[in-house]
Amino acid sequence: RAVHSIAWDPVAAAKGDYRHFMHKEIDEQPRALMDVLRGRIDQERGLITLEDLRLDDQDLRRVRRIYAIACGTAWHAALVAKFMIENLARVRVEVDYASEFRYRQPILQSNGERDALILTFTQSGETVDTLAGMEEARRQGVPSVAIVNAIGSQAARLADGGPIYLHAGPEIGVASTKAFTSMLVAGYLFALRLAQAHGTLTPAQIREHIQALVELPGKAAQVIEQVTPVCVELAERYYRVGNALFLGRQINYPIALEGALKLKEISYIHAEGYPAGEMKHGPIALIDEGMPVVCIATRDHIYEKMISNVEQVRARHGQVIAIGHEGDELLAAKANHFIGVPATLPLLQPVLNVIPLQIFAYHVAVLRGCDVDQPRNLAKSVTVE
Amino acid sequence: RAVHSIAWDPVAAAKGDYRHFMHKEIDEQPRALMDVLRGRIDQERGLITLEDLRLDDQDLRRVRRIYAIACGTAWHAALVAKFMIENLARVRVEVDYASEFRYRQPILQSNGERDALILTFTQSGETVDTLAGMEEARRQGVPSVAIVNAIGSQAARLADGGPIYLHAGPEIGVASTKAFTSMLVAGYLFALRLAQAHGTLTPAQIREHIQALVELPGKAAQVIEQVTPVCVELAERYYRVGNALFLGRQINYPIALEGALKLKEISYIHAEGYPAGEMKHGPIALIDEGMPVVCIATRDHIYEKMISNVEQVRARHGQVIAIGHEGDELLAAKANHFIGVPATLPLLQPVLNVIPLQIFAYHVAVLRGCDVDQPRNLAKSVTVE
Repeated sequence: RAVHSIAWDPVAAAKGDYRHFMHKEIDEQPRALMDVLRGRIDQERGLITLEDLRLDDQDLRRVRRIYAIACGTAWHAALVAKFMIENLARVRVEVDYASEFRYRQPILQSNGERDALILTFTQSGETVDTLAGMEEARRQGVPSVAIVNAIGSQAARLADGGPIYLHAGPEIGVASTKAFTSMLVAGYLFALRLAQAHGTLTPAQIREHIQALVELPGKAAQVIEQVTPVCVELAERYYRVGNALFLGRQINYPIALEGALKLKEISYIHAEGYPAGEMKHGPIALIDEGMPVVCIATRDHIYEKMISNVEQVRARHGQVIAIGHEGDELLAAKANHFIGVPATLPLLQPVLNVIPLQIFAYHVAVLRGCDVDQPRNLAKSVTVE
Repeated sequence: RAVHSIAWDPVAAAKGDYRHFMHKEIDEQPRALMDVLRGRIDQERGLITLEDLRLDDQDLRRVRRIYAIACGTAWHAALVAKFMIENLARVRVEVDYASEFRYRQPILQSNGERDALILTFTQSGETVDTLAGMEEARRQGVPSVAIVNAIGSQAARLADGGPIYLHAGPEIGVASTKAFTSMLVAGYLFALRLAQAHGTLTPAQIREHIQALVELPGKAAQVIEQVTPVCVELAERYYRVGNALFLGRQINYPIALEGALKLKEISYIHAEGYPAGEMKHGPIALIDEGMPVVCIATRDHIYEKMISNVEQVRARHGQVIAIGHEGDELLAAKANHFIGVPATLPLLQPVLNVIPLQIFAYHVAVLRGCDVDQPRNLAKSVTVE
């Protein structure tokens, strides 16, 4: 085996003044979002460059179908990336759990097609099911690209189409935070790169997306500062509950899943995410006055639908915690509690929307006296089946 | 509007000696499974005929991509059908929540492709989101086929590729049971019909599948008789819990979701389904001695993986209720409780595996004093958003 140098500064892994790594890593997100952009965006020419990608324009143009595979939080990033890629590059994406994909015998290539790509998401680059999925793809001659944090990891080496590194620095807390938001931005960069090759976006259009990306770290910093007091207050109010629901639609549905997973992982509250339109097909039966329901309802093409979901939850006496755009008085009036975040492009909004959910979960876990950085039964990186 | 005659006998909708429609409908499953097969299978020639399908062999051969859309329990049927269709006909299936699909702007046809089909699942044929998805498909010139129970319903009329009727008779209980298992068999028939057109199965092979289908109603009757005592016992033991997990892999992952949904709908227990391979990425943190974990582990190509998931749950002191093949002593020894069901083809096994989950949920709800047939907040058919 060759020796690979690891570009992480061990000092950066120290907790500093923080009580928990998770808290530190939440706060590091503005910087991580800058680092994932560095050297990859040319605002003047409206151009995206992914330095380690080994697929050129011609290779990328051949890609008509993407299988996005991952586990856990990274799987939520893959679900978000599906929206980014389908919208920006008009390339179809099927998202799968890596543990399901590897045993599914997926129809990767049939009738001599050579139009598929595997896109994996993994912080550690050592997630066993994700690696197995990449190996299966390789056996079938399908190239793969890995969005990965750990430099020189197995996933980075297995990705014959090249890794896209997050450069988020070490993440120590078991519950992923900065790696998740960095994955979303890396997925966005890949979607833009694909759009550039397919010609679905002009350089002028890409320039607008780059502008939004450049503004994102500052907005993330603003979110952290703005929402922390209300998240602490809500944590104090709700930390004793046993159950919670998280609802979202479209690109914010995976954010609902992620918000629920954070709470589940570190506070052992049984939180579940649902696409809000499915609520009437079952989960609404769970709602009573004791049930907090987090609704993600930033303004977009399905905002009105989320507003009526908020009303439906209230009609069943559920306690609505709404995430919306700052200054949204309609939403604030309809919900029991309101958390405002700044607006960005709809496809980037998940990056900002997830931050209050991380902060809320963190404070709930602290109040419950849980071991935030090392929750029971969980490992940072799942390297055995 | 034309007048449509409804082929349902109002007398059949009476409760008879049953306390609840749901119980009656669970017991009607062997008959419903016969009715969905009637007139559609030619065992001698190894031939499937779907009498209302308006797509001929040539139309079906053109289908290379299917979007399966549905809500709630019917969405679980769509997830199962994906495995059936991809395995038998080697046609790719993407499953989507109807409420998500309709607002997603899916890439149905690009570059002049004419190879897509919409396949919907709906008991009532009036589910608003599913109908909207079908209308979107029609606008884009994509044909649709509806697997539907209610004759002459909107979905049946909107399906320009024709309906595939369940002929399951009226389903009154809000929690779907016989319509679900009938949908699974209808999906199987459609997968075989597609395989027949694509030539991926020979008549001799289809004959073997037909044989398994013919034996299925009898096996369903056997399951109901066999598992009821142990399900009643388990219900008495666990009806006071607040939370439960349901785990499965591959084609039995949707059955885990369905088992959880049944419990959630009628007993208001917060039950959640998960693909077993994802357990270590979060839900395992919830497991302690108070948590029943239903594991579906009938023998198939991932049986060993399910066995190790059972061991992992036990190691965290979770209470494992295992669904396995009758006589599986290994599984029975590893689990806290064992429910045996007869074997059938792996792609049909979900039809039998779900029955004990229905019976368990029913008895739990009765013991909790819930209104089984009309659970709070839920409607039988969701006809408004």
